[in-house]
Amino acid sequence: MKLTTDLGERSYDIILKRGSLARAGALGNLLRKVLVVCDDGVPAKMVDTVLAQCGEGHRFVLPAGEASKSVEHWQAVQARMQELGFGTADAVAAVGGGVALGVAGCAAATYQRGVDLYLFPTTTLAQADACVGGEAMLNLGSAKDVLGVLHQPRLVVVDPDTLNTLPPRPFAAGLAAMMKLGLVGTSEIFSILEVLEPGELDDEMERLLYLCLRYKKGVVERDEPGTGEGRLLAFGHTIGYGIETAALAAGGAAPLLHGECVALGMLPMLESRSLQRRVKAVMKKFGLPLTHPFKQEDVLEGIRQGRRREGDTFTVVRVKTTGRGYVETIDLEELCLLLEG
Amino acid sequence: MKLTTDLGERSYDIILKRGSLARAGALGNLLRKVLVVCDDGVPAKMVDTVLAQCGEGHRFVLPAGEASKSVEHWQAVQARMQELGFGTADAVAAVGGGVALGVAGCAAATYQRGVDLYLFPTTTLAQADACVGGEAMLNLGSAKDVLGVLHQPRLVVVDPDTLNTLPPRPFAAGLAAMMKLGLVGTSEIFSILEVLEPGELDDEMERLLYLCLRYKKGVVERDEPGTGEGRLLAFGHTIGYGIETAALAAGGAAPLLHGECVALGMLPMLESRSLQRRVKAVMKKFGLPLTHPFKQEDVLEGIRQGRRREGDTFTVVRVKTTGRGYVETIDLEELCLLLEG
Repeated sequence: MKLTTDLGERSYDIILKRGSLARAGALGNLLRKVLVVCDDGVPAKMVDTVLAQCGEGHRFVLPAGEASKSVEHWQAVQARMQELGFGTADAVAAVGGGVALGVAGCAAATYQRGVDLYLFPTTTLAQADACVGGEAMLNLGSAKDVLGVLHQPRLVVVDPDTLNTLPPRPFAAGLAAMMKLGLVGTSEIFSILEVLEPGELDDEMERLLYLCLRYKKGVVERDEPGTGEGRLLAFGHTIGYGIETAALAAGGAAPLLHGECVALGMLPMLESRSLQRRVKAVMKKFGLPLTHPFKQEDVLEGIRQGRRREGDTFTVVRVKTTGRGYVETIDLEELCLLLEG
Repeated sequence: MKLTTDLGERSYDIILKRGSLARAGALGNLLRKVLVVCDDGVPAKMVDTVLAQCGEGHRFVLPAGEASKSVEHWQAVQARMQELGFGTADAVAAVGGGVALGVAGCAAATYQRGVDLYLFPTTTLAQADACVGGEAMLNLGSAKDVLGVLHQPRLVVVDPDTLNTLPPRPFAAGLAAMMKLGLVGTSEIFSILEVLEPGELDDEMERLLYLCLRYKKGVVERDEPGTGEGRLLAFGHTIGYGIETAALAAGGAAPLLHGECVALGMLPMLESRSLQRRVKAVMKKFGLPLTHPFKQEDVLEGIRQGRRREGDTFTVVRVKTTGRGYVETIDLEELCLLLEG
């Protein structure tokens, strides 16, 4: 099915359909130079599928993982475009998760003041959430998402078949993003996740993605600059960013994923114990972690570096009941109380 | 006097007045954290004047010169903001010429997805041209202006008194930008430059700046994305970029300035010998170079790297008579013929 994000001249379609990746060339204009940005965790076959539909496709492979969302990689993508003689009539495509989408989005936004961008998300997180809204962010050293731009894509192609080969942890991290959208906006999403067993997910995936994309696109249309309703989309992110920054700083072989951090960041923002219990049950069922190993002071330091801070206050999203998020500004003391649970 | 650039929600005022730098705080909201970006060629007193009006002002000094328009400096500005705990309610100000405006503009555009930007241009080039339009560009290695964004400022304060201490070469380079605006759009600007002697410039500076700013703001309002009428503003830039790229690559102690390169790039695009003679006379009178030392192949290589190329064709602006520029797309052979004069 097709959803159209209505943003005037920058409107674009989101195609949600099994097998659509192989039809990308018929849906958008890939008959030109296209730099296809992916990460080395994306099956090469998927990238080949996109490259085969480009007029002159070039592959750019990032190392998988959050550390690739860096200024260095953003610069390297553009240096490669420069080397290949890309002009403003050429394009960038991203195949992969949030990291590929972020780096490709930033590069497309700034190369020669902006070129066309195509998004082919292949993770649950990117398909349900990150592929809509045009937000492309980079990390500055260990500080998460400090730099960024808004650059709307020309087309988004969501092919749920690409999720079949996604490993369990990133798959579950994307369910956390769905849960977020259900808790702040469309309670039906949360209800579906609450009743489904993991084995039944595949059958309901298109319905879930449709509900997520429909809600997120509506928010983006109503509030492109991200100041009003769009702030609800940051549910879980204030504390989640703190946890993720602490995780990035700690290093280690298998750091927490973005979606896992957001899920952990949501829990303290749920206003009733009963809702916390329900959310924890969903998290546990789908294999999301319920705790993290970082010290509160390290998490706080991460939150301080994040962009939810304004001077001595912090913007948070809280949820009373499913589908009903609201924005609140709190001070450090209140934040610490919430962190302590 | 005040000109308002009408861009809907992103409208902003341009204040043109002698002594206005000392009143910047009354004109804009500087009572917050402000990173004041300048280069080491800007008199410290001017930067002090701005800092004194900030709630919490911090100075960031770039090395003077085109090489500072780099990704590294853009990143360093944002790392400093991060270190100082800047949030989205804080601001960036630029005091100086095109380099400070470009780096500060890019940093303001991307830090936490965008913060307020104040422009205090102190060179003729920046006051007449670069301070309006919101375009902020960076170089990628030796390739000029490959990366960039549009980020409109909150306020522009043009104080012609700051030009009193500007050395002759950058002063004249800015006159080239004025000449450009006169040749493509407002012939009165060119007429004034044609009749004035260098010693009379100071008396006419406000009138010249007013005419330049009025014309440029009109173009920006009518054509923000830079696709239609705005392309006229690139007069002299196709070949000029080639010369500038060759100059950057050649290095040396006193490379050609941006405005000098643009002036040299305009000459081949004037369609009559008589107009070429008139323009050369103005350039000579104000101390602009009439030749450059680079090989045609190096200039061509620079043009190829620039953003006026689309595949095998190049976008150029040509001028038949003063105040009347038009855009043309030509191939490599035609470009070479023009280069040979």
